[in-house]
Amino acid sequence: MHINKNYQNIEETYLFSEVAERVRKYMEQDPGASLIKMGIGDVTRPICKSAVEALIKATEEMGTAEGFHGYGPEQGYEFLRDAIADYYQREDGIKLFSDEIFVSDGAKSDIGNILDIFDKDNVVAVTDPVYPVYVDTNVMAGREVIKLSATADNGFLPMPYPGLEADIIYLCSPNNPTGAAYDRARLQKWVDYANQHGSVILFDAAYESFVTDPDVPRTIYEIEGARSCAIEFCSFSKTAGFTGLRCGYTIVPGGLVRDGIQLRKMWLRRQSTKFNGVAYPIQRAAAACLKEQGYAELTENIHYYKENAKVIADTFTELKWPYTGGKNSPYIWVKCPKSMKSWAFFDELLSKANVICTPGSGFGACGEGYVRFTSFNTHENTVEAMRRIKDIFGDK
Amino acid sequence: MHINKNYQNIEETYLFSEVAERVRKYMEQDPGASLIKMGIGDVTRPICKSAVEALIKATEEMGTAEGFHGYGPEQGYEFLRDAIADYYQREDGIKLFSDEIFVSDGAKSDIGNILDIFDKDNVVAVTDPVYPVYVDTNVMAGREVIKLSATADNGFLPMPYPGLEADIIYLCSPNNPTGAAYDRARLQKWVDYANQHGSVILFDAAYESFVTDPDVPRTIYEIEGARSCAIEFCSFSKTAGFTGLRCGYTIVPGGLVRDGIQLRKMWLRRQSTKFNGVAYPIQRAAAACLKEQGYAELTENIHYYKENAKVIADTFTELKWPYTGGKNSPYIWVKCPKSMKSWAFFDELLSKANVICTPGSGFGACGEGYVRFTSFNTHENTVEAMRRIKDIFGDK
Repeated sequence: MHINKNYQNIEETYLFSEVAERVRKYMEQDPGASLIKMGIGDVTRPICKSAVEALIKATEEMGTAEGFHGYGPEQGYEFLRDAIADYYQREDGIKLFSDEIFVSDGAKSDIGNILDIFDKDNVVAVTDPVYPVYVDTNVMAGREVIKLSATADNGFLPMPYPGLEADIIYLCSPNNPTGAAYDRARLQKWVDYANQHGSVILFDAAYESFVTDPDVPRTIYEIEGARSCAIEFCSFSKTAGFTGLRCGYTIVPGGLVRDGIQLRKMWLRRQSTKFNGVAYPIQRAAAACLKEQGYAELTENIHYYKENAKVIADTFTELKWPYTGGKNSPYIWVKCPKSMKSWAFFDELLSKANVICTPGSGFGACGEGYVRFTSFNTHENTVEAMRRIKDIFGDK
Repeated sequence: MHINKNYQNIEETYLFSEVAERVRKYMEQDPGASLIKMGIGDVTRPICKSAVEALIKATEEMGTAEGFHGYGPEQGYEFLRDAIADYYQREDGIKLFSDEIFVSDGAKSDIGNILDIFDKDNVVAVTDPVYPVYVDTNVMAGREVIKLSATADNGFLPMPYPGLEADIIYLCSPNNPTGAAYDRARLQKWVDYANQHGSVILFDAAYESFVTDPDVPRTIYEIEGARSCAIEFCSFSKTAGFTGLRCGYTIVPGGLVRDGIQLRKMWLRRQSTKFNGVAYPIQRAAAACLKEQGYAELTENIHYYKENAKVIADTFTELKWPYTGGKNSPYIWVKCPKSMKSWAFFDELLSKANVICTPGSGFGACGEGYVRFTSFNTHENTVEAMRRIKDIFGDK
């Protein structure tokens, strides 16, 4: 009996625990401080009325002999897959087939689990800074991971370069943590690269509902050729505030074939074997969010966060701090003033403004000198945090 | 780019699709037939009142700013882990620590995903007949699988034998599909084997709440030494009718160490990286099921199914058909009369009695000549099905 030794190669991420520890220590010294948390990427607004109603109705059904639902289809109920297909058609003019849509308990699970269907020897490319799950899941499987630098020089949007040999490419757009988003022209280059090299793009679209810019695609399937090279991961977490309800979906197009096998069929096999579908009432709630009334309600929530993002972005514009994001994203990635390092600026912001951000260096070497702000807070707190920052760091 | 070629070695299971196809064909010939389904292992009784109420209350919380819950702990909320620890203490006198309990979206997911933490080169032992997930998940990972015959000769309870070299051993007790259950003495031998060989037992206890016999342990941790060799998988699916709500839990004891590493820590790392916890309202519903009122309600449901199991078992006793299960299990595994093969008897039962069972050969070579009946039906249907079987196959 041996364990999977690759686990010993995973770098421990102390980012959020270190943030918590520094905050705890600070509060010991200054117990009365009124902290504003702009660090963690979790939503704060309650789930919308339509979702609550649908969830309660479905729960009531489950308590009756007639309405009881046992095991559902592993791939998700037809009613939700139809609602997702309709959403793509309506919002993006994209036609999806029902058997290309897989409902799951969240994008994080699928992004990790999808690796089951790929050979261990594939080379993986991720951006730096990066959502740590992309790296850790591949290190667990013993794969080689190469990093593509996302810096101010490339607008935080790495592009394929001559000599790049990557089999699996993670793209997150709008990006966590930087908030940068690929426009059509740039994304087309990645799709062309993948089709030419036989690579697969794992496209994390968890923040698609924050896209404002008409040049930024909300789904990679807006790009010609994507259906033969890209898997898209989506989530109700950030769109509909489902971080505590757990529902997402993954699109594996029928045209995506490697080694002569439809990846859609492999993913179905994986999910049928290791997954048993999402709770029926949660799927009803998710479907309600995509219908007219529910969608209007959640759009209001997105709009609320986007207003916060604008408040943050405007502050940094005024302070002349270079930043990305905030427009198509709930995240703002800002360069620390006075060439400070990430943790030094984190400490200064904590002690002087009582505002908590996330040090960019925690997301990768290229994140050094940056911090991430999130717009997942109340409007009042956001305005107050920015007021404090301007007071302290602005021209006096 | 290459796919995981091990997927090509998975045997396609046509069992339930073939059952459905034969039923469809039969119904074409005899559209008026009143079929009774005793094949599929899904519960039929609605979820209990306490669970419905807890789920609705938690959903209402999610719709308010104050009660909203975002990302929860990947390992499950403390309130549910405490309720599970209390359940083990109360029902079995077993003390579990909170950090040994991992809440998940179901035993099937965990049974598949746990393999992530083990080396590919471990040898896996499963029983034959077997719940196909144990085999398929290992074939996907490229592991060697050896089969331990479960036959009338060993009471359908395979035991370790001299020369057996297995690193990972799956034991399901009470068993799916046979309904046989290990008593303490037999289970002790497996625990001793695992401790001597450094193996790990993956103990599937999904049917523990059906145990009646005081000699049959509901949890492997009743056995001395189990805390250093066994992981236990449990589920609210069969206990509380949660097949459509998705909640289970896995116990990884702190004392289970391999290659110098606590497996508990590896599983926590796996779950933190590839999983985001179970929906807050579902966890509230699960916790309600373990409290006094909820537990009384679900015990009533279990009792209902067990009465059905008794009706089925009594029928086979009367007919003098050898069978196992039905006492500590919702399943009855019966030898086909007249030495018929599984599918032949399935067809005869379908056409003559309009009763649907599951052919045992679909669970493995040793299942040939047997069929599985389940007690997940109404009492009336169960009685009627047995009346038909006695009419047709009994002495006249």
